[in-house]
Formats: sequence, C-alpha cells, structure tokens
Amino acid sequence: MNKSYVIGVDTGGTNTAFGVVDRRGEILFRASIKTGDYISGEEYINALGDAISELITKNNLSEQIIGIGMGVPNGNIHDGSISMAANIQWAKSGEKILLAQMLTGKTNLPCRLTNDANAAAIGEMIYGVAKGLKDFIFITLGTGLGSGIVAGGQLVIGHDGLAGELGHVRIIRHNGRLCGCGRTGCLETYCSAPGVARTAREFLEINPEKASSLRRITNREITSKDVFDAAQKGDGIAVEIFNFTGTLLGEALCDFIAFSSPKAIILFGGLTHAGDFLLKPLKASLDKNIFSIYRGKTEILVSQLNDAEAAILGAGALAWE
Amino acid sequence: MNKSYVIGVDTGGTNTAFGVVDRRGEILFRASIKTGDYISGEEYINALGDAISELITKNNLSEQIIGIGMGVPNGNIHDGSISMAANIQWAKSGEKILLAQMLTGKTNLPCRLTNDANAAAIGEMIYGVAKGLKDFIFITLGTGLGSGIVAGGQLVIGHDGLAGELGHVRIIRHNGRLCGCGRTGCLETYCSAPGVARTAREFLEINPEKASSLRRITNREITSKDVFDAAQKGDGIAVEIFNFTGTLLGEALCDFIAFSSPKAIILFGGLTHAGDFLLKPLKASLDKNIFSIYRGKTEILVSQLNDAEAAILGAGALAWE
Repeated sequence: MNKSYVIGVDTGGTNTAFGVVDRRGEILFRASIKTGDYISGEEYINALGDAISELITKNNLSEQIIGIGMGVPNGNIHDGSISMAANIQWAKSGEKILLAQMLTGKTNLPCRLTNDANAAAIGEMIYGVAKGLKDFIFITLGTGLGSGIVAGGQLVIGHDGLAGELGHVRIIRHNGRLCGCGRTGCLETYCSAPGVARTAREFLEINPEKASSLRRITNREITSKDVFDAAQKGDGIAVEIFNFTGTLLGEALCDFIAFSSPKAIILFGGLTHAGDFLLKPLKASLDKNIFSIYRGKTEILVSQLNDAEAAILGAGALAWE
Repeated sequence: MNKSYVIGVDTGGTNTAFGVVDRRGEILFRASIKTGDYISGEEYINALGDAISELITKNNLSEQIIGIGMGVPNGNIHDGSISMAANIQWAKSGEKILLAQMLTGKTNLPCRLTNDANAAAIGEMIYGVAKGLKDFIFITLGTGLGSGIVAGGQLVIGHDGLAGELGHVRIIRHNGRLCGCGRTGCLETYCSAPGVARTAREFLEINPEKASSLRRITNREITSKDVFDAAQKGDGIAVEIFNFTGTLLGEALCDFIAFSSPKAIILFGGLTHAGDFLLKPLKASLDKNIFSIYRGKTEILVSQLNDAEAAILGAGALAWE
C-alpha cells in the first residue's frame, strides 16, 4: 500500500501548528501546541511528538504517513537543527538543537526541517503562484522579513543551510534603524509589520504639523494594521508611511534581482494585506531603480495561499521528497 | 576515438583571446583577434570562426574538438546571445545577437556561451581555488565588477540567463556615483579599477592639505596601479583609498552572503594585485558588518589562476558539458 500523507509542522514564535497533508495539498486534520510553553528543545519535541502521534492515531493513519516536514525559524536543512532563533526562548542560543533527529527518535517517522521562509517558498512552488517557476524569490512580510530563494528549480540553501536572510540585507547604511540582529539599517527594520509601525511613530514625530487619525491612538502602540485602516480612510500620513515602505522594498528588490534574476518575486504575509498602498509605490520604485537589462521582466506577485496553511503545506512538502 | 579538446573563447572589450584546452586544463595553442575591429556581430563571428578553424587545422586537431565555449560580456547562456554589452560597439544595443548559433553555423562545432564572469567562475570551479566547492561567489575586480554565483553546485543563471550582476547592486543610495548603467551608487563605481581611480581623484580633491605622491601625476589620469604603487611606498592617501574601497566591498559582501551563504568568495582580476591593501580592510569590514549567523564562515580567497588563462579555461569548460 502506498503511503499517502505527510505531516507538515509550522513552528512559529508563539504557536506550533501542524497538520496531515494529502498529495493534492489539502490539510485534512490539524492541531497545535504552544511553542513557548517549554523550557528546552527536548521538552518541546516530546510534546510535539505526542501531539502528532495523537493526531495520527485518532484518525487511523498510523500506516499511512510518509514522514514529517518542519518549517522553523532559523532552521538548518543540512542537519535538521535550530539555533539562534530570536523569538523562541529555548532556541535562542548558538547551540544547535537537532530537532529533526529528535522528532524522528520520538515518532519513528523520517523528519526533514528547513527554515520557515524556505518551507513556505516550497509550498508556493508546489501549490501556489510559483507553480512551474524555476527562478523566484519568496518574501514574507510579517513580524520580520523572511525569504526563500529558488534558482534553477532548486532552493538556495548555502554551504551551511542558512542562505536567504534578505531581511538582514542593509538597506540604510547611514543612521539606519537598530535591528534585533544587533546591526543597523537591516531591511526588516523597515519592511515588516513592526517596521511599518516604527515608521508611523517616526513620521508622526517629525511631522507634528500634519493631522492624522493615528495620533488618536494613545493607549497602546500603533500597529501596521492601524496604519492600513487609516490609509483606507484617506489619512495622508498613513499613505506616506506605505509609500516609504514600498519604495524602500522596491529598491531592495532591484538588488535581489541583480543577484538571481528571478521570473517572479512572491510576497506573502500580513503586510501584503495593505494591497496597493504597498504595491503601487513598490512597483514604481522597482521600475525607477531597476538595472535596465532586467526592466519589466520580473513579476511582483502576492501569494494566494492562506497564511495559516502555506507554512504547513510548505513544511509538509519537504517530506514528500 | 574520443574527442579530447575544446576551444575556449574569451571575448573582451578590446581583444578576443581563444585557445585549445585539454582535459587537464592546459591551454595548448592560442590566438586572438581584435573584438572592436568589426562593425557587426556577423563580421566578428566570420573572423573569429576563420581564426578558430585556422588554429585547429594548423595543429591537426580537426577531428578532435568537442565544441566551443565562449565567455562574453553580458552573454546569455539560455540562447547564446549577446546584447547591451557597453564595451563592444557592435553589441551595444538591446538587439540580441545569437553569437553561439552563428559560430556553430560558421565552424560546424557545437557552441555554448555565457557571460564572462560566469565562465571564469566555472573555470575556478574546475581548475582553481573553488575546486570542490558547491557554494561560492566569484567576483572580478577589473574595469568593472563582474560576478558569477554558484549555489548547490549549479551556476545561478536566472530565468533570463542574466543573473549575477553584483556590480550593479547599489552600495551608496544617497549621492552615489553615476554608473555607466545610468543609475547611481552601483558597487562597480567604487570597487573596480576605475572606481579606485575615481576615489583617488575625490580624495585628493577633498583633502587638499594632505601631501601625496599621487598629486605629481598631472599629465594623465591617475590609475588604480598608481594608487597601488603609492600605497606600497607608504603614501597615506593611497592607503586610505584602498581602505575605503575594501571597507565598501566588505559591506557589500555581507549582503551577498545573506543571499546565498557561500563557503567562499573568490576575488579575481587586476585590483586583487593590491593584496592586503585591499584585503585587510575588506576582511575587517566583513567581520564588523556580517550578520552573526554567518560570522567567520565564509572564506575570502584570491584566484590563483593566471588572468589571461582563467577566462579561456572557464569558457572552454562550458563545452565539456
């Protein structure tokens, strides 16, 4: 009997969502655990393994699972490890935690792992707008800026498995914003949900004369969602914030295109919900700044996959191989 | 009888050098024509084909040649074409000239073509310091800054065959130097032989109080070689010029590493003769600016191949495949 299902695991900073995926890319059953509830990688994998086994047996699939694919922050496809993952308490240090190997030990299922953006890029290639593309760059615009690069049909993983950290390309070299990585001017400090919120605070402060509905938010921090809501109502500063964000991202994409000359750049994640507020200035900036040999050749696409599903599908796709 | 030789062709802005290469990477016979002596791609290929045929018959190798590999500026591996090559009069326009196909028509030999930096990168992988490496970036520092990127053992060529134009990544976004590509702040306007000469002119002008032997060069333009000679004699401004160049290149390499996480970056071309004047500030800048997950992992290597040979070997390597 051919085994017909894989388990896709999306390890986020807060939640770990996982599901049983069939060959057509449907998530049949799903469950989740809290990533942060554990004090070590071992405890986490014990809990995750138990939860996966429960989902499998509950649905009578014990003989049907090919393997497990995981997408984890800063995951390393070469050795199936996680380390230096800023958002996960038990994985913050430089010590490598061999999650894939540990999960195999716990579940007796083969397990592969890669970083979350790479997993989602694979998901796009198999099930999404990148279907059939051999050269594309996938960019997540969420709490950070993550990326997965596919060149010649292959994921670019690098000699150490850590390629594709485009959020840490420096877009502003002079007086750039301090990044969580300890450096300044990284792209993700500008082009991410928190980056947009940061731009909002800056723009409101340096333009005290400009009215904005965002000034009425005083009891909490402004979010990128607030900026989007304000932009939709015609708020001038909110529109400027997205113009600034899109323009910078467009400039960065010009450099990325000079690297791998992708057929498409696929944007994914919360910030893409801003739609044309982000995309129009982005495309204008791209057209303005692109090296002429690449002009008009790279499509900017927005992922059509459901945010919650793409990561599970992509992670699961690792297990099909 | 196994055919045992290939023809490697290095099409430069001034000269086109070519040679008969054996399986061990030795160039047995060679010749050249002037690239600029022709008014069209057709005329050029006619002359080149004749010269290649002459070299072959003269050495009694008519039955022994597997094929021809060409490295040409802005060459496109997908369709074997050249276009928008700024340094070649007959190939400047956007019109694609199908050199590989034309040369096959003329010589009856299979012909593959790629851009000159990609060809040299392949040469490094087969015969040079990149032997055995699956992930590296090759950078030529000459009249421009060219690059060839290898990821997972494959040349990154992009959907249109034009990937790897790292000389046109913008390193200075504010008041950057005007580039031949029409944009400003491109890396090659700083980190190339003419870039160093340009820095020399700027540094001499903005530091009128500083003595420098470079000020004695008044009857012609200062070259990067002059700056190197002066640095060797302890000239302060000359040393500063290389510090500036190496620092900028180191910053750019940090961004490139975030893309493909290469095991090595291989530097090639005239500017590398500056040795530690360039390499010391480059490495210091790399160490200072690198994202921590990559720190200390990427080697900076200088090509050991003879400048004149590497391009022929690399181009020839295309024909082995």
